[in-house]
Amino acid sequence: MSSSLHGMRLDAISAYVPEQVWTNARVAARLRLERMRLSARTAGADQGAISPDEAKLFQTSDRWVRRFIGFTERRFARNGEGTIDLATQAARMLFARSGRGPGDIDAIVVATVTPSYRHSPPDSALLQHELGIPIWRGPVPREMKGADVSLACSSWVASLMFSYAMIRAGMAASVLLIGADRMSAAINWRDRSFATVLGDAGTATLCSAVPEAEDWFSPSQFWSWLDGGRADIIRTPAGGSRHPCPSRQELEHGMDRLAMDGAAVRKRLVPFVGGPAIDAALAKAGWRMDDLDLAALHEANLALNASIVETWRERGFRGKVLDAGGRFGNTTSASIPLALALNAGEMTTGRKFGLIGFGGGLSASFAVGTVRHPLAAWTNIE
Amino acid sequence: MSSSLHGMRLDAISAYVPEQVWTNARVAARLRLERMRLSARTAGADQGAISPDEAKLFQTSDRWVRRFIGFTERRFARNGEGTIDLATQAARMLFARSGRGPGDIDAIVVATVTPSYRHSPPDSALLQHELGIPIWRGPVPREMKGADVSLACSSWVASLMFSYAMIRAGMAASVLLIGADRMSAAINWRDRSFATVLGDAGTATLCSAVPEAEDWFSPSQFWSWLDGGRADIIRTPAGGSRHPCPSRQELEHGMDRLAMDGAAVRKRLVPFVGGPAIDAALAKAGWRMDDLDLAALHEANLALNASIVETWRERGFRGKVLDAGGRFGNTTSASIPLALALNAGEMTTGRKFGLIGFGGGLSASFAVGTVRHPLAAWTNIE
Repeated sequence: MSSSLHGMRLDAISAYVPEQVWTNARVAARLRLERMRLSARTAGADQGAISPDEAKLFQTSDRWVRRFIGFTERRFARNGEGTIDLATQAARMLFARSGRGPGDIDAIVVATVTPSYRHSPPDSALLQHELGIPIWRGPVPREMKGADVSLACSSWVASLMFSYAMIRAGMAASVLLIGADRMSAAINWRDRSFATVLGDAGTATLCSAVPEAEDWFSPSQFWSWLDGGRADIIRTPAGGSRHPCPSRQELEHGMDRLAMDGAAVRKRLVPFVGGPAIDAALAKAGWRMDDLDLAALHEANLALNASIVETWRERGFRGKVLDAGGRFGNTTSASIPLALALNAGEMTTGRKFGLIGFGGGLSASFAVGTVRHPLAAWTNIE
Repeated sequence: MSSSLHGMRLDAISAYVPEQVWTNARVAARLRLERMRLSARTAGADQGAISPDEAKLFQTSDRWVRRFIGFTERRFARNGEGTIDLATQAARMLFARSGRGPGDIDAIVVATVTPSYRHSPPDSALLQHELGIPIWRGPVPREMKGADVSLACSSWVASLMFSYAMIRAGMAASVLLIGADRMSAAINWRDRSFATVLGDAGTATLCSAVPEAEDWFSPSQFWSWLDGGRADIIRTPAGGSRHPCPSRQELEHGMDRLAMDGAAVRKRLVPFVGGPAIDAALAKAGWRMDDLDLAALHEANLALNASIVETWRERGFRGKVLDAGGRFGNTTSASIPLALALNAGEMTTGRKFGLIGFGGGLSASFAVGTVRHPLAAWTNIE
């Protein structure tokens, strides 16, 4: 690759959501069903009734979710469909519509917290095969960089950062950046906190090397943060290497599924992302709050995000917030690219944007950039 | 950071292995115990005896493992000890011995296929807290980049590549690169193929920015490859997002544990890594086979690695192979840095080395470099 191509642009982006719609009412009904099952079982086992506090964990409604979370519905993948299937659909759409071929790609970075397989194979390798990305030139292997990257809700921006670093360093020219998660596989149906929130989606973004003068970013336009001191507030207690063999009872209680202390998340993340974090990221970039024309925040929860944006507004933010409008839930590694794909028309040349990932870890990963070229985008959403 | 510091060196490296030694005989006894348990259960359930083919999967011996795999023993972590605990021990050793403080670090990259927690929190965030890496300067958050990176047995070299890209791009100056895996958590005790192979270890490597003239590497000295066409030969069938809810019977059969088709691995990987892959990596770097003074191959299996090295020798390789001598098993993301830590005395200034990761995916990730500064190293191994 030419040594002068050390800038990066987002060339094209695609988002795929599975067909199966889960409204808030359907989620609420599923939680009720789970409570009835549990009640029947505990009664049968003579374990006493579910306590009122426990019962609350199963209780929600369309009205409550709309009001306190801001989501109306989300999509769930079918049985047997994993992150790789969502990613493959999105990437095929990208290739079919953009006219770019799999042969243009020289790196595959997959942001996900729900890898299709534990341990091995990585989704980045699976994707090479699913997409037919060429890895031979006659008898000579064609280089293909890549890996799966995980940083909770900040996975996608962290992966964008790695993609940028590779391009900036002259180590890749055309990165297929996937943000995909089958979050429905991480839901504990005995706990409304994430059950009302999570959704499934796959996205593919083509990150291309461009001359440095056309760079959308710069090394100082990426800012990240890790704080393990409150790792407990967004956590899957069992099933990882620290507790690899959950008991039958722990599995029954959904201990291998994601849990959240919603109040602690709001208390920690709203003031942090709303204040010191965005200040630090903008100061590093040499930008001010009112430089941002557009901001795509990880769609953790629209009410929570609204609180963050409110503090930004008080500090001079006048831009527009890009999101998926609560129709697809919290899709973790897919949320920001999904919002970009749905609002690509806003990404007009010259506009300055912020990509704001934050969540489990705790972690935060931000990128700010300037659109210097129209961003092509496609989705399978009507 | 200074814009002239765009090269990278490996400053210091540490390796921690847990205390608990599992000899080949102990592994063989554990497999026999599992077979007896299964026999008792199937007899009780009137399911018929274990077939001779099934029985073979439980059968091994010290003699067989030494001869066909080359391993003598391995270490297993205690219950409750996950990848984070192995990584923390290694990193604490690094800080205590090197005189570098947690305050020097500006990025944490964790290579692992056995994250301490599923979904969240990532080990990179946990490590920030365990090590007391400062993330505040008064009221201002101090930037901390990082993520967890997974690419099966190539995870560590892929993570080294991302660390290099960040430093080369001027996005980090001091990366704490972890390679750690609690592979014992991935063992299916009904299948000797990985039970005789896997081990646990944690490593920490300090990757520091240096002036470009002192760079140990260059962008062209990293080479990677992904081939999902044979993803099936090293795979954990259940427990990922494609099949998130294994049945009780599937769990009983260890379907959420790593499985391998050893014959296919040998057939695919030995000729590939022995021939076209190393040729492509060296051609890209502009090196020849006889330039390599030292090579550290992922210690998948010493017999398999010996076959690879044999083909290299036929093609002119005259260097020395660095490994852990079969005493620690296949520690996945820890294997190459463990070999470097145990053989740091060989890494003398001016020597040229190759770091060769390969395995599940299929994947391969290679780096070749030149030692330009003594490499400090420590282990907890007598």
